[in-house]
Amino acid sequence: MSKQEGGCCEPLSESPLEEDQAAELASMFKALGDPVRLRLLSMIASRPDGEICVCELTPAFELSQPTISHHLKQLRQAGLVDSDRRGTWVYYRLRPETTARLAAVLSSAGNRQPADVA
Amino acid sequence: MSKQEGGCCEPLSESPLEEDQAAELASMFKALGDPVRLRLLSMIASRPDGEICVCELTPAFELSQPTISHHLKQLRQAGLVDSDRRGTWVYYRLRPETTARLAAVLSSAGNRQPADVA
Repeated sequence: MSKQEGGCCEPLSESPLEEDQAAELASMFKALGDPVRLRLLSMIASRPDGEICVCELTPAFELSQPTISHHLKQLRQAGLVDSDRRGTWVYYRLRPETTARLAAVLSSAGNRQPADVA
Repeated sequence: MSKQEGGCCEPLSESPLEEDQAAELASMFKALGDPVRLRLLSMIASRPDGEICVCELTPAFELSQPTISHHLKQLRQAGLVDSDRRGTWVYYRLRPETTARLAAVLSSAGNRQPADVA
C-alpha cells in the first residue's frame, strides 16, 4: 500500500519507470488487455447503482460460467474490481481508484507536446 | 479511422462496450501489459525533445536487440509510438493521441461515484 501511495501516479512522461513500478502497472494493464475483460469491466462500471450481479454478467457472453469467473478473478486480482457474496450470488463493483491511477499515468504521457520544446 | 473518430473515447462508465470497440481497446492495453514495453514507452515519453534513438533504448535493458525491437514493434502496431529511420538509426516518439484516448476511457470509468445515486 505504501508503494501505491508513494508511487501512485507518476506520469510516463515524467521520467523512465523503475522496474518494480513497471511490473506493477503492467499487471494492471495486462488485465485490461482482453476484450472479454474490458466488456465485463464496462458492464460493471456503467451500472447506475455501482454494482452488478454475476448472474447478469454471464448471460451476456457466449462463454461458460467458469470462463467468466476466471476473467472476473483476473480483474479482481489486478485491483480493478471488488466483489462480495450476498446469498447465492457474487456482486461486482468498480474500484475507481485503480482506473483513475492508470488514467493519470497515461494522460500525463499524452500531455507533453514535443513541438513546444522543438 | 472513422471508427476511431466516431467511437474515440466512450468512457467505460458510459455504457457496456461493443465487441469491436472492446477488441480494439484491448489490443492497445495488451501492448501496455508488459513491464519492458511500459519502461520503453516511459523512456520514449519522457524525452525532453520528444524522441529517442533505438541506440539509447537497447543498452538500458539486459535483453537482446531483437527482443527490444520486437517490443517496440508491438508498441508501434498498437499505435502507441511512431518511428522513423534516419541514417543508421531508428528514432521513436510517443503518439500522445493514443495514450490520451486510453486515459479518457479509464478516467471516465473512475468518475462515477456510486454513493451519488445510492
